[in-house]
Amino acid sequence: MTPDTTAIEADAVIIGAGPVGLFAVFELGLLEIDAHVIDALPQPGGQPGELYPGKPIYDIPGIPVCSGQQLIDGLMRQIAPFQPRLHLGHQVSTLQQQDDGRFLVETHKGLRLRAKTVFIAAGVGAFVPKRLTTPGIDAFEDRQLFYSVADAARFAGQRLVIVGGGDSALDWAIHFATQADQAPASVTLLHRRDGFQAAPASVARLRALCEAGQMRLVIGQVDGFEQQGERLTALQVMGPDGETQPLPLDALLVFHGMSPKLGPIADWQLALERRQLVVDTEKFQTSEPGIFAIGDINTYPGKRKLILCGFHEATLAAYAAQALIAPDKNLPFQYTTSSTRLQRLLNVDSANPR
Amino acid sequence: MTPDTTAIEADAVIIGAGPVGLFAVFELGLLEIDAHVIDALPQPGGQPGELYPGKPIYDIPGIPVCSGQQLIDGLMRQIAPFQPRLHLGHQVSTLQQQDDGRFLVETHKGLRLRAKTVFIAAGVGAFVPKRLTTPGIDAFEDRQLFYSVADAARFAGQRLVIVGGGDSALDWAIHFATQADQAPASVTLLHRRDGFQAAPASVARLRALCEAGQMRLVIGQVDGFEQQGERLTALQVMGPDGETQPLPLDALLVFHGMSPKLGPIADWQLALERRQLVVDTEKFQTSEPGIFAIGDINTYPGKRKLILCGFHEATLAAYAAQALIAPDKNLPFQYTTSSTRLQRLLNVDSANPR
Repeated sequence: MTPDTTAIEADAVIIGAGPVGLFAVFELGLLEIDAHVIDALPQPGGQPGELYPGKPIYDIPGIPVCSGQQLIDGLMRQIAPFQPRLHLGHQVSTLQQQDDGRFLVETHKGLRLRAKTVFIAAGVGAFVPKRLTTPGIDAFEDRQLFYSVADAARFAGQRLVIVGGGDSALDWAIHFATQADQAPASVTLLHRRDGFQAAPASVARLRALCEAGQMRLVIGQVDGFEQQGERLTALQVMGPDGETQPLPLDALLVFHGMSPKLGPIADWQLALERRQLVVDTEKFQTSEPGIFAIGDINTYPGKRKLILCGFHEATLAAYAAQALIAPDKNLPFQYTTSSTRLQRLLNVDSANPR
Repeated sequence: MTPDTTAIEADAVIIGAGPVGLFAVFELGLLEIDAHVIDALPQPGGQPGELYPGKPIYDIPGIPVCSGQQLIDGLMRQIAPFQPRLHLGHQVSTLQQQDDGRFLVETHKGLRLRAKTVFIAAGVGAFVPKRLTTPGIDAFEDRQLFYSVADAARFAGQRLVIVGGGDSALDWAIHFATQADQAPASVTLLHRRDGFQAAPASVARLRALCEAGQMRLVIGQVDGFEQQGERLTALQVMGPDGETQPLPLDALLVFHGMSPKLGPIADWQLALERRQLVVDTEKFQTSEPGIFAIGDINTYPGKRKLILCGFHEATLAAYAAQALIAPDKNLPFQYTTSSTRLQRLLNVDSANPR
């Protein structure tokens, strides 16, 4: 491949904005290297942010207890001085070495970066929405079938069916059922049972809206679909009685939660062992020089999938990357406690350090 | 050597109560292993506690800024559920393998432990008081010359000379000069210049006590000493004018600060490289199976002397030690966020986790 002039030039691209990816920003920043961070989720935080934002973590060294979200908030404050460029809601689709030795990183939304080094901090993979498994229905994706709401106005005047029983499904159902402008023609919530894993207040609001006739609740499971030409016209819904009925619609929004997907990482020709990227313990480098793997996605003798281990891995990988990115720049090894150079990078007012 | 029945039996002995040694207590605790911790300093904290308790640290992951003391406080709270046995003010003098494979750990105060595993987390070595360099004066140590106050009553009725210009010297000088019972006959503070590196309030108090005649300040440097038989009778003090005068005394207390000393660790037949203990990166084990080295005292390819790296090293070493201590106990790998077993160990009230 020849160099791509439309791509953003980057010293370091970090794939994954979980705690380990975020801390890599910090260590690279101390080494005077700016980082781009790409994540499939719409917000930083990775697993702790997505799977257990409110649950306590007890084994972050020096922090007797914090929630997943508090950890992420602390890391975001810690890296703020380095102004990382976060590309959220982007799933990396391509990682390819170019003739000049750099790596082309491309996302499914067409973002392109040309990177001297790549840090794969992707944990268990990209968190992507769980898809409907009904055979053939994926053909309607992004036309009539959606897994997130990018533009609420597109459902104006449509018969909208929302599938799911969690907070996302209920919040959006309530949103559309009570929308004043550009409202859908009708809103139907489809859930497999008459019970919800959502905030009690949302459930109460949902029941009230159904009673008031502003929306409808259908209990049942998607058993198939009907189409006319290239157009999805109805779901076939099997009710609790085992009978299948058509549920006509113009648009379908599905909220079945997120699940991790290793995705294209498995296809990048990097050495794998049980679907983990094999790294050394000096640089945490993969089989491809310049591509590092840190956090839960890597493996080496003694590996434990702990956030605190990922912090160490990110740190040594950052030093190794620095040697590749700017081999002639001889940065002294210094401590944040005593180095005015590092404190300047951290925007610390030396006269008033805290 | 045959087993020593007077020694304390221990699964794990940690040498060094700095941040990395303290965190080893935590990781061992999660693995249901009780730890003993030995440190030469009278309080836990190691370098951050001793050298920069009030200075900010910016690179503890998840903590944008904390002081050395705050880090130690956080770690002490974190390990509190495991009730570690801390042996402070003890310098390890002996580490010797016994016939049964266990290690005899002995301190200079005669504390003896018989350990299945040993974690050397000694940083740059034991922090010991800087000694007077006057040739021959060390012969009086522990009889008339002291570097710390173990028993203040022993100076009752004596002519006490305190050497130093920092907080410790001033605090003790003020203490003895204002003592009601069992007071020294006289208190003299000897410092090389008429200026102090101590809290302004202490300096003001010192000046007031001198003015009131409750103590005396002598400016000068120790240039020699006088003795009668085996008894130290006076220091020879060279004043700012270059003249040497005798300063009669019965007891001498010196506070010249602490400095690290690798001490006997260098003599334990463990593989060293540039005075660092060589370890692998799977177990952070030294050349002696069962003896681990973590934190600033170890070396391996890629090593960076950072606290956060020591946390990782302590963690993997704890898992390796667990396999030695209880090879048949098959503990599942679990997370503190989700494991009720680990939360029970951490004394978490599951109904109210925070």
